[in-house]
Amino acid sequence: MIRFNNDYNRGAHPAVLEALNAANTQNYGGYGLDERCAAAAKSIQMHLNCPGAAVHFLVGGTQVNFTVIAAALRPWQSVIAADTGHIHVHETGAVEHIGHKIQALPHTDGKISAAQIKAEAELYRTSGIKEHITHPKMVYLSYPTEFGTLYSKEELTAISAVCKEYGMYLFIDGARLAYGLGSPKADITLADLAALTDAFYIGGTKCGALFGEALVLTNPALQEDFRSSIKQNGGMLAKGWLLGLQFEALFKDGLYFELGKKATAYALEFKAAFEKRGIPAYIESFTNQQFVILTAEQQAALAKDFTFEFEADLGGGKAAVRFCTAWSTSREEADKLLAAIERI
Amino acid sequence: MIRFNNDYNRGAHPAVLEALNAANTQNYGGYGLDERCAAAAKSIQMHLNCPGAAVHFLVGGTQVNFTVIAAALRPWQSVIAADTGHIHVHETGAVEHIGHKIQALPHTDGKISAAQIKAEAELYRTSGIKEHITHPKMVYLSYPTEFGTLYSKEELTAISAVCKEYGMYLFIDGARLAYGLGSPKADITLADLAALTDAFYIGGTKCGALFGEALVLTNPALQEDFRSSIKQNGGMLAKGWLLGLQFEALFKDGLYFELGKKATAYALEFKAAFEKRGIPAYIESFTNQQFVILTAEQQAALAKDFTFEFEADLGGGKAAVRFCTAWSTSREEADKLLAAIERI
Amino acid sequence: MIRFNNDYNRGAHPAVLEALNAANTQNYGGYGLDERCAAAAKSIQMHLNCPGAAVHFLVGGTQVNFTVIAAALRPWQSVIAADTGHIHVHETGAVEHIGHKIQALPHTDGKISAAQIKAEAELYRTSGIKEHITHPKMVYLSYPTEFGTLYSKEELTAISAVCKEYGMYLFIDGARLAYGLGSPKADITLADLAALTDAFYIGGTKCGALFGEALVLTNPALQEDFRSSIKQNGGMLAKGWLLGLQFEALFKDGLYFELGKKATAYALEFKAAFEKRGIPAYIESFTNQQFVILTAEQQAALAKDFTFEFEADLGGGKAAVRFCTAWSTSREEADKLLAAIERI
Amino acid sequence: MIRFNNDYNRGAHPAVLEALNAANTQNYGGYGLDERCAAAAKSIQMHLNCPGAAVHFLVGGTQVNFTVIAAALRPWQSVIAADTGHIHVHETGAVEHIGHKIQALPHTDGKISAAQIKAEAELYRTSGIKEHITHPKMVYLSYPTEFGTLYSKEELTAISAVCKEYGMYLFIDGARLAYGLGSPKADITLADLAALTDAFYIGGTKCGALFGEALVLTNPALQEDFRSSIKQNGGMLAKGWLLGLQFEALFKDGLYFELGKKATAYALEFKAAFEKRGIPAYIESFTNQQFVILTAEQQAALAKDFTFEFEADLGGGKAAVRFCTAWSTSREEADKLLAAIERI
Repeated sequence: MIRFNNDYNRGAHPAVLEALNAANTQNYGGYGLDERCAAAAKSIQMHLNCPGAAVHFLVGGTQVNFTVIAAALRPWQSVIAADTGHIHVHETGAVEHIGHKIQALPHTDGKISAAQIKAEAELYRTSGIKEHITHPKMVYLSYPTEFGTLYSKEELTAISAVCKEYGMYLFIDGARLAYGLGSPKADITLADLAALTDAFYIGGTKCGALFGEALVLTNPALQEDFRSSIKQNGGMLAKGWLLGLQFEALFKDGLYFELGKKATAYALEFKAAFEKRGIPAYIESFTNQQFVILTAEQQAALAKDFTFEFEADLGGGKAAVRFCTAWSTSREEADKLLAAIERI
Repeated sequence: MIRFNNDYNRGAHPAVLEALNAANTQNYGGYGLDERCAAAAKSIQMHLNCPGAAVHFLVGGTQVNFTVIAAALRPWQSVIAADTGHIHVHETGAVEHIGHKIQALPHTDGKISAAQIKAEAELYRTSGIKEHITHPKMVYLSYPTEFGTLYSKEELTAISAVCKEYGMYLFIDGARLAYGLGSPKADITLADLAALTDAFYIGGTKCGALFGEALVLTNPALQEDFRSSIKQNGGMLAKGWLLGLQFEALFKDGLYFELGKKATAYALEFKAAFEKRGIPAYIESFTNQQFVILTAEQQAALAKDFTFEFEADLGGGKAAVRFCTAWSTSREEADKLLAAIERI
Repeated sequence: MIRFNNDYNRGAHPAVLEALNAANTQNYGGYGLDERCAAAAKSIQMHLNCPGAAVHFLVGGTQVNFTVIAAALRPWQSVIAADTGHIHVHETGAVEHIGHKIQALPHTDGKISAAQIKAEAELYRTSGIKEHITHPKMVYLSYPTEFGTLYSKEELTAISAVCKEYGMYLFIDGARLAYGLGSPKADITLADLAALTDAFYIGGTKCGALFGEALVLTNPALQEDFRSSIKQNGGMLAKGWLLGLQFEALFKDGLYFELGKKATAYALEFKAAFEKRGIPAYIESFTNQQFVILTAEQQAALAKDFTFEFEADLGGGKAAVRFCTAWSTSREEADKLLAAIERI
Repeated sequence: MIRFNNDYNRGAHPAVLEALNAANTQNYGGYGLDERCAAAAKSIQMHLNCPGAAVHFLVGGTQVNFTVIAAALRPWQSVIAADTGHIHVHETGAVEHIGHKIQALPHTDGKISAAQIKAEAELYRTSGIKEHITHPKMVYLSYPTEFGTLYSKEELTAISAVCKEYGMYLFIDGARLAYGLGSPKADITLADLAALTDAFYIGGTKCGALFGEALVLTNPALQEDFRSSIKQNGGMLAKGWLLGLQFEALFKDGLYFELGKKATAYALEFKAAFEKRGIPAYIESFTNQQFVILTAEQQAALAKDFTFEFEADLGGGKAAVRFCTAWSTSREEADKLLAAIERI
């Protein structure tokens, strides 16, 4: 059984594991105050063109999301997100648990637009009853989105401009950032993200690390006392260097970017193969997640040798399903699925 | 200027004020443990046909809402509500502030249906990733709704059945309950509400009291330590008898019901007058709030002598506006508006 | 039975009730945006010598406390208070409920000192593990304290200086402010409070109003969006003018100060009478609360005609008990207790 | 420089690392639903003599603590802890952040007694104003304590009995459990902990794992929907098997117990060496943390080759300092410190 159901079903890239093994006989300072985290942060900062950026390493994505939001917002402030946004539908109400409302906007292919955001911000600005509603103070996007789609640089620039106009923070969830940046459709870099956002995170868990996410805070207003927020929200690893050394390994010689590129390339081969067979896309994605519509027979045929994820029942036996490649996908695994697609 | 903009722009019904004056020379026990609260609770319980119901008096509606929700739900549990629900759009994120997500469903004339609720509950029940989503454990309705519309007994019975089937609490916000029960379209009683819900509140602030709401907890599971929740959430008035005596006065000789009936009757006269003039309803309401669509000229003409509330810009100068009657509306005030409607 | 058990067992001063009755036929704007609140705020501001101060009216003390704290602090910041502080021991964990730790310091007669506060702030300032501990960002005092004692101007000035030195807010709970200012031992004014604190509230509930507290925010940093915090925390009364008109009445011709002075004077007569009989004070108080140590016989004798509050069991039948005067205490009631003290 | 400053300055025991390496080529199910977590839970359960116990794996201790508390308590309920308890002084107010008060009791050598706890519970039970105070519903202990001291089985049995009597949960923080169980003074087993508590956790981070804690929930009331609480609080690792396999390795052939025993044995050698030199203990500990009082000269002498942690300034240059052994401490490292102690 070959797993294409998600991108977090295997350990870590060998380079990450090697770094971990090599560090095991060393002593380090606790709670992220160590030379490995410092080195990893430096490696990342070299891509940002943003000397004042702060880099923090946290264990997982949900934690990054609510920790950033908890630190950034005052109690009556809310977050604008797509109604498909991870914080809205897949994090067990963690954002609300720490006290903030999410203002969910209808998505288009997993995305929201500058115009939608502006309308929401304008609604608040012109409201005569501001004290009865929440103040949208942050915009949360995912890059790539939960459907594998990408914002263009033009779209992000427009959203960033709206955020600046209305004094809102822009925060980008990059759980699968490697696969986004590795797409032929991507027209942004880490430096663009640093320039356009107030905060974003570089996903490790799904992109080659055992676990861990690198949070970049470019806006100084979000940096103050941020370690207190990490600790309070349970995200401060005692052996912080375990996070640092993983990102050090991933950012050495562009490995992170290479892994993303490779996995997305396999996914696009799947996409082409499905298209060739006339199997329709559920959502048009150019990253490592491919959503296609399969008949019951096609599902049964592929389920013999591959795992994939159910997304939505479309009636008549048809379903939208997801095939995920990952940093760990091999040429051989990809070829097996390609062959199977041809046969169904 | 005659105010029809809302139903909380005047003090209290004379009977309420009289009771307040009469009590001013008396001593009472603190924090709601007094004979006036006891008597008021008893008066209300006589209408409930529910011997085990507990009655608590709180200062305002927002507070009742989040206090009930805080006491009822565990952290990962959420509340289903219409996307027009007061807790979702007009309480500054108070429910999220105390930690819970609101799952907003699209409304129809301010209402949601048993089918919608069942679908949401079923989604959770059959979910394979329950720990990643919130657990809908309560349904919040308003009676009448924010648009003045009413659930029929049949609708409420169906919703109540779904709630029981899925182990969800049903909580009804009765901020304007008097006006709902006083409608010719209403086919429920307080006893029906007690039988069909786990909790509901009888609005005082908008229905003849200076301030105050009477919360009825019919489900014993919600009753335990509820006074601790009231105090913790700032809703425990030191001089609790001030709340009790108001509800005593309102429930003496059916005054509460009479006030609601009278105000709604005036509103229905407005409704008929607007219809007669061909002025369309924005939402078809049979309670004290009437939403109509006025041209710019009509708005200007009525604004000379009356206040009313802007609801929505419909383009081309047209707007949906709200006219509210209240317990304090007089025959004379109503007649003036009726005459004005005829003239525009 | 004459009640000296607390200072909130009667309605309101006749002047307050009169104002309430007079306003009952008027219309007002909702949610505190009305001319009565504006007038009351102006009356209060005339005493403050602080043109930039904002005045808000809330329903009760617990609510004022947690609303101010919620608005002022970021999640990892905490409040320093006496271990006898009302927020620490009598508000059902409301401050923790909205997310903040209280750092309780040992009290002396209900008070804490500038030196204690400085030590706590210095501990944080010099800590090498700031992210593992909370940041004391506010000092909460009560004036008078829960034991009826008073901070001198010198003490408050020293505390205020420490707060400024360490960037902490100073917030004073004035639930019984009238009785403090009315004490012959008081050496401060409202203007002093405005000059020395960032926020304080002028208690109405216990000092002549039916209910309501007037919050003064002198620090502009606390003023921004404060109405959102009030609404979110359930403290925004729909008929806000009910609060405004009460404070208007209390601040007309110095009534508030006069009521405090009178009640405290009666209490000091009790104090003298107890002393004369050799009945020891439990705490030396010069305001409306008197704590004395009574034998079982003395308790029984006084309990025949008077209510008073149990404070602490001191063994051997002895107990510390509290006698409270209030704005409503009459010469006749006071005389009866004085006579009874002489007889026991 | 040899580090005795803490017990989390090195990676993992070789057996743990080996297991991690071996698993790196395998695929697993996500979020803790995998065979490695199942196997690890089974290994732990074999020690518990408690068939109904649930075992969950979380990343770190702070997170375990607030996740358990969030799931167990209703909003007005509080946790009793020693005033030296980790949740009270070293977790950045995380418990208050999720809404609960900690009732801190004065410690004796880091411990609190059944009598103290009973007094606190009795205070609530007999209170006439329950709604104004928090309800102590959980007792939090650390085993060993933050000072390395141990509760005897007799003490724990007495505390457990008080908890049962008053309907309180007993929760034990076992961040350093291996070192406690490995002490010659320990008279309890994991099965005793399971029998006496409602929940406890077996520390991994400080006891041989890279990171991770194994939470044991023996009380079924705490088990329901617990995975929702983990996810909501950010404690659910996507690659949960990384936690499972570490505990599998630690519980194979009693490794966990052996590591604790060895580290504590070294610490007791230090203890004896200090005593022999007349260097007084700050706290008498029989586990891996040794707190001693050193003069300025002694500190300087030892600081040349060893790191140790400052605990408290005792005046006159003297300080209480902590020496920690760990699973990673070698015979050679221990001997070097022993030799150094002899020389100072």
